[in-house]
Amino acid sequence: MAANLLSRYPWVSSPFLVSAPMRVMSGPALAVAVSRAGGLGFIGPGAKTQDTSDDLEEASSLLRQAANTISNTGSALPIGVGYQLWADDINIAVAGIEKYKPCAAWLYAPRRGPQDFDDWSSQIRHVSPETQIWIQIGTLKEAKQLLQSVQRPDVVVIQGAEAGGHGRAKDGMGLMALLPEVADAMASSRIPLFAAGGIADGRGVAAAMCLGASGAVMGTRFLAASEARISRGYQNEVVRASDGAVSTTRTLLYNHLRGTIGWPEEYSPRTIFNRSFIEQQEGKSFEELKKLHDEAIKAGDKGWGPEGRLATYAGAAIGLIHEVKRAGDIVHDVREDALNRIGRLRPHKI
Amino acid sequence: MAANLLSRYPWVSSPFLVSAPMRVMSGPALAVAVSRAGGLGFIGPGAKTQDTSDDLEEASSLLRQAANTISNTGSALPIGVGYQLWADDINIAVAGIEKYKPCAAWLYAPRRGPQDFDDWSSQIRHVSPETQIWIQIGTLKEAKQLLQSVQRPDVVVIQGAEAGGHGRAKDGMGLMALLPEVADAMASSRIPLFAAGGIADGRGVAAAMCLGASGAVMGTRFLAASEARISRGYQNEVVRASDGAVSTTRTLLYNHLRGTIGWPEEYSPRTIFNRSFIEQQEGKSFEELKKLHDEAIKAGDKGWGPEGRLATYAGAAIGLIHEVKRAGDIVHDVREDALNRIGRLRPHKI
Repeated sequence: MAANLLSRYPWVSSPFLVSAPMRVMSGPALAVAVSRAGGLGFIGPGAKTQDTSDDLEEASSLLRQAANTISNTGSALPIGVGYQLWADDINIAVAGIEKYKPCAAWLYAPRRGPQDFDDWSSQIRHVSPETQIWIQIGTLKEAKQLLQSVQRPDVVVIQGAEAGGHGRAKDGMGLMALLPEVADAMASSRIPLFAAGGIADGRGVAAAMCLGASGAVMGTRFLAASEARISRGYQNEVVRASDGAVSTTRTLLYNHLRGTIGWPEEYSPRTIFNRSFIEQQEGKSFEELKKLHDEAIKAGDKGWGPEGRLATYAGAAIGLIHEVKRAGDIVHDVREDALNRIGRLRPHKI
Repeated sequence: MAANLLSRYPWVSSPFLVSAPMRVMSGPALAVAVSRAGGLGFIGPGAKTQDTSDDLEEASSLLRQAANTISNTGSALPIGVGYQLWADDINIAVAGIEKYKPCAAWLYAPRRGPQDFDDWSSQIRHVSPETQIWIQIGTLKEAKQLLQSVQRPDVVVIQGAEAGGHGRAKDGMGLMALLPEVADAMASSRIPLFAAGGIADGRGVAAAMCLGASGAVMGTRFLAASEARISRGYQNEVVRASDGAVSTTRTLLYNHLRGTIGWPEEYSPRTIFNRSFIEQQEGKSFEELKKLHDEAIKAGDKGWGPEGRLATYAGAAIGLIHEVKRAGDIVHDVREDALNRIGRLRPHKI
């Protein structure tokens, strides 16, 4: 299965590492850098769907410039693109995919459940058969629904409760228990599974593969990549923060402060919390929090941090991230670390 | 480090598997069966501390009968014993350890935090230097406190939020993110770490070792061992239930229905929920729930299951447990599975 998977992404080295399609922050520079290093980089959803198509245009241009640094790209563009189905415009998305032919489209957060996945998959495959369909889920129930779907995904991403940004609001679970149970339920389908959530170094990658994943997705780790499209204050906070169990939480507060409404109710984002959340817990009114939040925006990079007020979506593995690095170095270092971990556990050594 | 660890438990085979000291349910028969299979079995806390000493007496007797089936036991009894520090009587516990010399004492849930760990460790070591001190924690904060402790533990067990029974009420986290961060914080101490929570087969064991553990602890998996001291109805429910993310929850309700009060507020148990919890959510009064609960006790094994009302403490990995097996077979099968998983991931194969 792993060999078959790699044949679709011939420039990727084992273990198969992926940068998650984080909204806005996973831009063309990050995605291209990850793929150039032998991973698979995804462009994230944009503030509006057309932005994603513009990002695909820029990525295409970057990839043409880097043509001789990625071998064996096949007929598709060696980067992927992600959409939030509840918010993105399917027609604009499909037109972008038809034009730029990314190797993978990552579909997440449907408004209508399996029906939306089928609609998107069908339209994408119609205009770009070389684009593989990746679907992100976070529960056993969704896994079972996918097995009934008309449009079978090419890859399923299992997101554990440790993940940053939007994940399951109430029915999430850590990858340690979730991934093997989903893997058992999906075993007969032979669809490759990727693990996401709480993975930020080679230990997590190696562990995910032991649990049954064919590859591993990292999001938060790439927020601290030099190529991430992120404010310096936000990035500094990802590097500074530790102890994700107590310094992050799932809350809709920051969505609301930013004016983001409409996420299906199954989802809620994990964020490093700061003054906004603490003062909400203390009883401060939303109106006052919103006023202070909007003033903090004007403060720029100082708007983040323990005394800040701005959204700092990040996963529970923030305590494993200690510096900003180039995305290519992250891919290389994590891959080498994972291989070393696995090598050290070889039966004759334990 | 692993080699040094194994020298203290010379009958144990790699990977190092442990049966958790589950209250009452981890009795002498289970602990001895696990150690006979090359793992390390723990007797759990009893309804009162003297019960644990009685269990040690029985285990000693079983081990004498099985003397030629465990080689290399060293000077200590080749099983461990666990205590809940807030509830157990230190004098009775220490007298039992002095008399029976278990190879390990597992300390958990202190009322006064690090001070209790130090007091217990000091007294145990005074009467039985061959008894190693295992301390269970679930947070980075506790790990940092242990580094400051006078009585350095011999082994630290990191319990992830997936775990069944009592764990951290509010500041828990999945092992995928928690374990590597704690491992980094404790690296300089060179204290071996064991992983607990959500591990029920070879995949979890292999993953835990990739994350930095020297061995893995399973609790719920051994609730479905033939030697567990558990009601048939409870055990059937562990086998039946699946999808731990939605079929288990943390709640104090079942403690209160059983009359168990006094756990330090940091802790709350994960349980498969049933009518008692559902009807509490629907607004039924505690008095009425208690009356129905006590009637369900009289119904015996029918008191468990989706329509039951009795406490069914279990971890999030219940969906990986499909049959009751002998404890020795569990140890053998999980060990072989873990070795196969690791072998299949060897660098030249991925």
